[in-house]
Amino acid sequence: MSREVILAARPQGVPQESDFELREVADDAELADGEVLVRNVFVSVDPYMRSRMSGIRTYVGPYEIGDPIDGGAVGRVVASNYDGLAEGDWVLSQLGWREAGVVEGKRVRKLDPERAAPSTALGALGMPGFTAWLGLTEIADVKEGETIYVSGAAGAVGSAATQIAKLKGLRVIGSAGSDEKVEWLRSLGVEAFNYRETHAREALADGIDVYFDNVGGEQLEAALSALRPFGRVAACGAISRYNDQKPESGPRNIGFVVTKRLRIQGFIVSDHNARFADFLREVGPWVAEGKIECRETMIDGIENVPAAFAGLFHGHNTGKMLVRVGPA
Amino acid sequence: MSREVILAARPQGVPQESDFELREVADDAELADGEVLVRNVFVSVDPYMRSRMSGIRTYVGPYEIGDPIDGGAVGRVVASNYDGLAEGDWVLSQLGWREAGVVEGKRVRKLDPERAAPSTALGALGMPGFTAWLGLTEIADVKEGETIYVSGAAGAVGSAATQIAKLKGLRVIGSAGSDEKVEWLRSLGVEAFNYRETHAREALADGIDVYFDNVGGEQLEAALSALRPFGRVAACGAISRYNDQKPESGPRNIGFVVTKRLRIQGFIVSDHNARFADFLREVGPWVAEGKIECRETMIDGIENVPAAFAGLFHGHNTGKMLVRVGPA
Repeated sequence: MSREVILAARPQGVPQESDFELREVADDAELADGEVLVRNVFVSVDPYMRSRMSGIRTYVGPYEIGDPIDGGAVGRVVASNYDGLAEGDWVLSQLGWREAGVVEGKRVRKLDPERAAPSTALGALGMPGFTAWLGLTEIADVKEGETIYVSGAAGAVGSAATQIAKLKGLRVIGSAGSDEKVEWLRSLGVEAFNYRETHAREALADGIDVYFDNVGGEQLEAALSALRPFGRVAACGAISRYNDQKPESGPRNIGFVVTKRLRIQGFIVSDHNARFADFLREVGPWVAEGKIECRETMIDGIENVPAAFAGLFHGHNTGKMLVRVGPA
Repeated sequence: MSREVILAARPQGVPQESDFELREVADDAELADGEVLVRNVFVSVDPYMRSRMSGIRTYVGPYEIGDPIDGGAVGRVVASNYDGLAEGDWVLSQLGWREAGVVEGKRVRKLDPERAAPSTALGALGMPGFTAWLGLTEIADVKEGETIYVSGAAGAVGSAATQIAKLKGLRVIGSAGSDEKVEWLRSLGVEAFNYRETHAREALADGIDVYFDNVGGEQLEAALSALRPFGRVAACGAISRYNDQKPESGPRNIGFVVTKRLRIQGFIVSDHNARFADFLREVGPWVAEGKIECRETMIDGIENVPAAFAGLFHGHNTGKMLVRVGPA
């Protein structure tokens, strides 16, 4: 038997632990041809999952009540009926919030633990890092010498975006919600500020060329004011708004888009999977050489996945939030 | 002697006639080498002039109190000290709100009255038409078969945008503020609605691929809701907001930018002057062949320029608003 987390109720506002339930399931089914049994070690909790819980179809279908939450997970193969994978192999799958599961071998990515710690496949070398790299390159088209502002800079995507931007020769300003996070960002060479204490308007008074938006709301408004002519916004997410029960006001200064000829572009990483190899080619070596610090906030136990997830919206993570659900 | 309109006070809210003054000036100065004396026939009033009256530097410098209002004007050369121009020639200049003026010959564009009515150089074949064409091609990258929504569709830019979009094979929805304008737009093949009677939300319920924004405010919010995934907004202007004394709320649904991967791009036509010849090559023949209808709202007399200008913000124009300040 193994355990998994299912959606018990659609969250109203900030997700509560009562919106989820732990369930025991059998995991001794016979493997069909091409299938593998994976025991998860690290389970990912990501802000984008919040909108899938709302029952509204956006760019991915919603989670259904009573179903387990799928999403990124890293684990080890314990039994294989697939040629390319053997017992003990590390793999990235979409098995999500469960201790173990059966999946088609061709639908997982084999990881080389010699090249990078397997958990980085959920962070700097996975979806969050790829999102950061795409937003900087493909969407915002950043150039050496420019100034970029990254909100949510201590999060999984934000901390990758700030560090990649530094490596690409940009001046990087970042915001986060605690002094500890700010200190960490400063140790990475980021001009960081605590948005709970300093208004972004002041922190960005010198002007910026690019805004990498992870939070929406007030930070977007401040960034629109600070952007220089021909500035770009890579609109990646809006964590400050995901739990809104009804929409608040939008950016009152949206008129700057015309007068300053700004470009605001939204993107979803899964539209760009064809670029993943290009991403790994550029960012992989930086992680291997330690030029990108892969900070993780690690929680233990499958039963704590819902709390870890809810913690994202309270800023409980520095770097990538992960839950360790089993031994390596 | 000739007359000109000067800025007497910075408008607060909607411009009033008292914000302007008529002044008599001498126009018998000796022409220097390379100069021409032009007597204006048509003077242009354009929404973008409103922001230059506010004293805030945006993409062009502000008008100064006591100075004449410069801007597009079409007139005839009455004396020339410039090789390329002779008495009687039609020219487009930036002489603005005055009956006559001296200008360097190299800074005007000679017009051929056989090819198109000279006043079209201020409308469909001038800045407004170029703006429409640029927004559709360069900024929104429209494709045959797509659906576009144009707000302010009966205005100078809007009526060019709707007609060019039709000629490029798009389905065109347009809004305007009176039943007469709506009827005119329908005669052009536009699916038009009166935004004072029908909410854009309803009119756009089928979805759109592109929004050509001339007005901002509520229409932008409705368009963000109606845009399909990968939709584009060509942000051209926000006439509904130019007279705001303080910013109102912004689009509450700005979060759609991420979930639907929208691109909102502001532009100013003067950044793209290198494309003007391409524009004329494509749109010139359409105007010559009558495939684009160049509707004008003509007011008479230099003393009525301020009222004509203020009328733009009350929707008094159908097509291009012009003031005839002298005989042809």
